[in-house]
Amino acid sequence: MSSVSVSADRMVEVYLDLLSQPCRAVHILLNCTKIPHRVRTVALRRGENRSPDFTKLNPMQKVPVMVDDGFVLTESDAILKYLATKYDVPEHWYPRQPERRARVDEYTAWHHSNTRPHAAKVFITEVLLPAQSGSSVDEVRLIHALSQLDDTLDKLESMFLRRQPFLCGDDVTVADLLAVCELMQPLGGGRDVLQARPQLQSWRSRVQSAVGDAFDRAHTVLYALRDRRKAKL
Amino acid sequence: MSSVSVSADRMVEVYLDLLSQPCRAVHILLNCTKIPHRVRTVALRRGENRSPDFTKLNPMQKVPVMVDDGFVLTESDAILKYLATKYDVPEHWYPRQPERRARVDEYTAWHHSNTRPHAAKVFITEVLLPAQSGSSVDEVRLIHALSQLDDTLDKLESMFLRRQPFLCGDDVTVADLLAVCELMQPLGGGRDVLQARPQLQSWRSRVQSAVGDAFDRAHTVLYALRDRRKAKL
Repeated sequence: MSSVSVSADRMVEVYLDLLSQPCRAVHILLNCTKIPHRVRTVALRRGENRSPDFTKLNPMQKVPVMVDDGFVLTESDAILKYLATKYDVPEHWYPRQPERRARVDEYTAWHHSNTRPHAAKVFITEVLLPAQSGSSVDEVRLIHALSQLDDTLDKLESMFLRRQPFLCGDDVTVADLLAVCELMQPLGGGRDVLQARPQLQSWRSRVQSAVGDAFDRAHTVLYALRDRRKAKL
Repeated sequence: MSSVSVSADRMVEVYLDLLSQPCRAVHILLNCTKIPHRVRTVALRRGENRSPDFTKLNPMQKVPVMVDDGFVLTESDAILKYLATKYDVPEHWYPRQPERRARVDEYTAWHHSNTRPHAAKVFITEVLLPAQSGSSVDEVRLIHALSQLDDTLDKLESMFLRRQPFLCGDDVTVADLLAVCELMQPLGGGRDVLQARPQLQSWRSRVQSAVGDAFDRAHTVLYALRDRRKAKL
């Protein structure tokens, strides 16, 4: 486990693996809002999430986990909203006005049954399962996963981004972070799922501009995975 | 479409099918907090969710949908939190204190990938698919669905309910409503998934007591489905 970030008396601690999409969303929010924090790396590929110490912290054995002054919280969705509420971050991340806040809650609820599983399945099928089993990619499963993801991308364009620059309105919110980190994941296998999607590409660029270098800092490990796989071909 | 409830100048409108689990959660909150509202029934079995009018309201063609003074909101999770925030409902439904609120957000995020799909799959396999196809229950699929649900029930007991009477603390919250309505669903096929689970049965009784007759009012249609199926056997 490694330590990062500025020192302070009280500091949020987060347990992350930056190859995990929801962990990157938390990492980006912490960095671009400059909340004093300390990152504890939990390497999933080495099974550190199943260690006795980590299991004590989170019996679900999942990352991310946040610890704030003794308060232990799991689930990236809840962590992002808690951080935005508890710390003095710009209002736009998780608006207080009920209708605007409801738009963020609406997307995040939808996210868990759509963007999250569908983008993850592409990465799992193309990268994780072949790496674990040593066999080649299951093409039938991959085509099915890509078709499910296509349906989700259609809805992101035609519904959430229809009349606005970000998923939940005129400014970036925690919803955009959760979404963009999922949609980046297949890039670890060399696949840009937004390649034929100019509308979503523009949205991704807007999110990148809004969060600055926190975007690439969170994605360094994913870029390295992509580059290692490319070098092998 | 039918109308229910008290009249008032301004009234929340909700589009529901009470055979849908998330719709029942919204129905229970509205009734037991006495928020003035009007129910518009959208019968999924008659495809009313695909009608031009309803599609205009919600292009996703899903229920529930809420309309509050022109503000259209989808996703039960977001609707419940919006209603609890916007209306003067007792604080316990969705606590304002950040740590207590985070517990509700933590459960609801987990819910979408666990309780929701796993309980629904049992009902779909045992009731919906056989009714649609006219063929018998796929036993292999059912055993798999029940085993996934068992894992979720274990976690509800050992983690969320380990040291507290409700899923997110000492009092009932919107999280309990979402959960209980999912876990009731297989009862439509005559299966009580909590039968061998005294800890979860006690929790369900506590939720029932907390919401009063709003519980049975929301579940009348499900009870009728169970009874019709029983009479056929």
